[in-house]
Amino acid sequence: MDGSIRGKVIDISVCISKDTPVYPGDPKPEIEKIASIQKDGFAVSRITFGSHTGTHIDAPSHVIEDGKTIDQLKLDNLIGSAVVLDFSEKGEAIGGNDLDVAHKRFGNTVSSTILLVKTRDSGEGRYTTFSDPPIDRTVYLDKSAAEWIIKNGFKVVGIDNLSVDAQSQTVVHRLLLGKGVLIVEYLDLHVVEEGIYFFACLPLKTVGCDGSPARSILIMDS
Amino acid sequence: MDGSIRGKVIDISVCISKDTPVYPGDPKPEIEKIASIQKDGFAVSRITFGSHTGTHIDAPSHVIEDGKTIDQLKLDNLIGSAVVLDFSEKGEAIGGNDLDVAHKRFGNTVSSTILLVKTRDSGEGRYTTFSDPPIDRTVYLDKSAAEWIIKNGFKVVGIDNLSVDAQSQTVVHRLLLGKGVLIVEYLDLHVVEEGIYFFACLPLKTVGCDGSPARSILIMDS
Repeated sequence: MDGSIRGKVIDISVCISKDTPVYPGDPKPEIEKIASIQKDGFAVSRITFGSHTGTHIDAPSHVIEDGKTIDQLKLDNLIGSAVVLDFSEKGEAIGGNDLDVAHKRFGNTVSSTILLVKTRDSGEGRYTTFSDPPIDRTVYLDKSAAEWIIKNGFKVVGIDNLSVDAQSQTVVHRLLLGKGVLIVEYLDLHVVEEGIYFFACLPLKTVGCDGSPARSILIMDS
Repeated sequence: MDGSIRGKVIDISVCISKDTPVYPGDPKPEIEKIASIQKDGFAVSRITFGSHTGTHIDAPSHVIEDGKTIDQLKLDNLIGSAVVLDFSEKGEAIGGNDLDVAHKRFGNTVSSTILLVKTRDSGEGRYTTFSDPPIDRTVYLDKSAAEWIIKNGFKVVGIDNLSVDAQSQTVVHRLLLGKGVLIVEYLDLHVVEEGIYFFACLPLKTVGCDGSPARSILIMDS
């Protein structure tokens, strides 16, 4: 295993600060310094945020009663080959047919079980909140997309938006998480081109939680 | 890059809950449910913890004035080949000579730049707090160990204890972080045997922070 990953690491996580946009109603992140080098000899901070802050993973228990919590997830599915599909030119809903057409650009050579959806919301490093730009310009997956993802055996789906669903909807969440397909939201894909990468996304092991912020990376052949 | 990592993923992170031991004076973790499936259609939690909670990375700014903060770290050094050295039989301080002797068991074949130190505190899945067992039984690195780590070009050093230093000391922290050697603390190595592994440890991208909880894994050849 020594040195088998040799390539450029691309950080596809957004920063977490008090200015990080959050889903309407979620807690705003807070970071407070509570010890300093000058006074205490070392610096320590207190961090507060919601379980779906910044780049994060939704555990099944986010929308499924008695679903698995974030600490119960096996990490194997969150590490491996990912296919990034570019829908930067597409507005509003992405459907199953859109995914099928885009995925066919790779022929039958792709065995990735992780699907990352790049939308126009990754444009210019700027990330959609549900107020800016307005909701009617937010790109999301529809029910047929969820069904295509499940049918094609993906274990993880990631998007650069705050939600895979249209605002105030949970239908895609419930379909995917109900089948054990994990959801990664609010990725930063603005420098990432369509292609195949090595992917890792590691959430915190917060006991009983419905989700967790997660640092996520891609590695491409150098 | 497709499928280049194929092996058993070993989670070497401790759980984060209200019961997770913390360094004396650090905030106790809190996890509070603030939305539920029954009432809101989805579950959300508020999470509060210190920047050095559970398995975590110390950024240079933890002890170095104007040192790099956790969001400024390049992730490349935190992903790659790691050598795990087993000091389960050793008490108290681990010195440079101890590391040298243990590392020589691998001959000259090891090019890992990540060093993980397994101590008796990983025994039986039980982790040292500084009160239980008492401080005089806590295993730590001494100054000569830090100098050996720096001299041998390691970029990251991890340990299963709450601190690489003896209690209330920061000398090893200052030596290592002053040279840009990152520190990972409170790993769970109790099932891990001495050897070479693929390692990844991904902290949250919390802006301006002196450290962050981080999910950490090893992958071994299957």
